[in-house]
Amino acid sequence: MPHINLPELPGIRALLTAFPQTGRPLIELAEALLRGPSPLTPAERELIAAYVSSRNRCFFCTQSHAAAARHLYGEQRDLVDRVLHNASLTGLSPKMQALLQIAAKVQASGQHVSEADIAQARAAGATDQDIHDTVLIAAAFCMYNRYVDGLATWAPQDPKSYEDMGAELAQRGYASRYKSQSLT
Amino acid sequence: MPHINLPELPGIRALLTAFPQTGRPLIELAEALLRGPSPLTPAERELIAAYVSSRNRCFFCTQSHAAAARHLYGEQRDLVDRVLHNASLTGLSPKMQALLQIAAKVQASGQHVSEADIAQARAAGATDQDIHDTVLIAAAFCMYNRYVDGLATWAPQDPKSYEDMGAELAQRGYASRYKSQSLT
Repeated sequence: MPHINLPELPGIRALLTAFPQTGRPLIELAEALLRGPSPLTPAERELIAAYVSSRNRCFFCTQSHAAAARHLYGEQRDLVDRVLHNASLTGLSPKMQALLQIAAKVQASGQHVSEADIAQARAAGATDQDIHDTVLIAAAFCMYNRYVDGLATWAPQDPKSYEDMGAELAQRGYASRYKSQSLT
Repeated sequence: MPHINLPELPGIRALLTAFPQTGRPLIELAEALLRGPSPLTPAERELIAAYVSSRNRCFFCTQSHAAAARHLYGEQRDLVDRVLHNASLTGLSPKMQALLQIAAKVQASGQHVSEADIAQARAAGATDQDIHDTVLIAAAFCMYNRYVDGLATWAPQDPKSYEDMGAELAQRGYASRYKSQSLT
């Protein structure tokens, strides 16, 4: 049961609905980070989000962003479960491998990111914007995960719920939910 | 030296200026969380921000939000250094003591917040909104701290810089910086 009184909506959706003053910038941040201009594709960014959420053991965020990443990767969807379940980065580009290593460092602490981590990413073709976007996505999911779990929000247990959420996030992104005045 | 090319501005200010698409919701979130409507005073919220930043060992965020908290606490300013340097919660209200304990749990992991932590806060008078705001402030500083340190931004070493930043944050908040179109 959630630690506070919340509408019967899954995960962060309950919080965004009940607390719209903070909900609005939280949604706008997700849209800018995961769907806004970036050298990283939405699929790659959803994978970083799911990877960090998995390392934070946030069930709701891992499942929903993994589902979105699978939809966005299309024929390459098997990549997502290999990264999340087998902790194997095989099959990803060297750039994505280096960026996921940076994301893992950020998940533990921003101070863990070393010059060697950055040099490895640059050698694999990463630009300043790739590195920035990776660090901020990883940092932001350290927030979203703690928000969802720190208030003990409800996480559906059936895979179908997450497949539906993932399809919606893949097709419509985050901001559409806000623009339509419905945060549910 | 920062891991990516940034303007010569301290800490998160360099990032908000260089990356305005994400900078805007990040500033709006800080304003809503630390200055928007809440049963917690701005002083109490800045103290939670500084406390979490201190536990994440983020020098820039700890110093700037501690300075803002000292300005806002006024005659009670000594509270801030007692909490940050001596890890002593003595002198705080029972409600703030319970909320800082929840913030410390969130800093480690959202899953560490127990029903006993919540019950203790409620017994000390905390409402749903107090608990929500505490959890989200703690979660958000787990993001801001990682963003600032994960990209190795520049942190001034002189206390005067932080006193000036703290005075400005106490007087003008966060959104004024954005509304004036100047993120520096």
